[in-house]
Amino acid sequence: MKEITYIDLKKCILEDNDGVANEIRTLLKDKKIFLWNLMSSPGSGKTTLIKAVISLLKAKFRIGVIEGDIESTCDSKKILETGTTVVQLRTGGGCHLDASMVKKALETMPLDDLDLIIIENIGNLVCPAEFDLGADLNGMILSVPEGEDKIIKYPLMFTVTGALIVSKIDVMDYFDFDLEFLKKNAHAINENLKIFTLSARTGEGVNGFTNYLQKLIEDKANEK
Amino acid sequence: MKEITYIDLKKCILEDNDGVANEIRTLLKDKKIFLWNLMSSPGSGKTTLIKAVISLLKAKFRIGVIEGDIESTCDSKKILETGTTVVQLRTGGGCHLDASMVKKALETMPLDDLDLIIIENIGNLVCPAEFDLGADLNGMILSVPEGEDKIIKYPLMFTVTGALIVSKIDVMDYFDFDLEFLKKNAHAINENLKIFTLSARTGEGVNGFTNYLQKLIEDKANEK
Repeated sequence: MKEITYIDLKKCILEDNDGVANEIRTLLKDKKIFLWNLMSSPGSGKTTLIKAVISLLKAKFRIGVIEGDIESTCDSKKILETGTTVVQLRTGGGCHLDASMVKKALETMPLDDLDLIIIENIGNLVCPAEFDLGADLNGMILSVPEGEDKIIKYPLMFTVTGALIVSKIDVMDYFDFDLEFLKKNAHAINENLKIFTLSARTGEGVNGFTNYLQKLIEDKANEK
Repeated sequence: MKEITYIDLKKCILEDNDGVANEIRTLLKDKKIFLWNLMSSPGSGKTTLIKAVISLLKAKFRIGVIEGDIESTCDSKKILETGTTVVQLRTGGGCHLDASMVKKALETMPLDDLDLIIIENIGNLVCPAEFDLGADLNGMILSVPEGEDKIIKYPLMFTVTGALIVSKIDVMDYFDFDLEFLKKNAHAINENLKIFTLSARTGEGVNGFTNYLQKLIEDKANEK
């Protein structure tokens, strides 16, 4: 009797993705480039934070940015103002970046002249968490107005993240945000998670994050 | 020579979905139940708005809620406090609700004793916009802290929406939010879009939206 041929498309897609992510890792190890993938909900402040990080680190490192967007180029234009190389990835409806898209972006970038590449992922707390992009650091932003309960509702994102940035702390007084609840629950599912609190708008706390990032970039550059 | 069999899985999925959405429409037309599908980013205030709407409309209508969540039941528990019937849909990683999920929820609900069913979709501005759930009204929330540029970055969501609710206006003074830019660009892609501004926390403006919703519910109930 014939058997049913069962194809788990999602598993296939993720396995293919992992292969390309490993190619990216090998390439960027060779080039000594640090890759930081930044994820968050729409409107959490990814672009504003990236601009603040560029402003503090551009004297030390040569920086490139990969901007993921469904349709628009408005974030790329903001990054261009900093004088940084930007590659725009338009997903045309797609809700996340995958490793193949990042590989295509890298192929267009001057890799011999870069130390740090920042990926601004699609604004979405769900699907981006499933796709390994070969990054050295997965970062995510949770902005204060979104609420601390996101740790309960989107656990995968907090699990794949190495650095959680709690942003917009300048408006903390106007929202009921329980930072201790967030920290406790985040460390329960991801004990090594680094947590930073900052406001990219006022600058408060941004140095703490960039010092951490600088150390990671230097460590990779110094690897044998 | 053999030809390649080409299966556009996404097209198949959306066509199957549309068929189920039409079944839902037929069922709820027969039962004279109004179905409101509410979408937004994570943390825009869907649950808080639903609680405010229930509080204002529960004396007039019999209300049920379908709660879509990836993992948790924390929103359902908040809705239960209002005394409303709640069905929890757990997607287990899935980034949107589809019509089959809603149909399954409806099969468990006391349809002869309901006038209004509210769907709280998964917090995501991308994928939920693609799936017709058979709703009489697609609503979306954009909260002030997210910024008005979401109209440029997530255009499909604003196109499939009948009522756009700009929420958290009580913190308008602490953010650079250009309401006129939003209105102008939203009406450019969706000329019949109704736009409401409110704060579910303070109650400001909530009546304007519930009066609009009440009229739609009554119009459907009075349809021949």
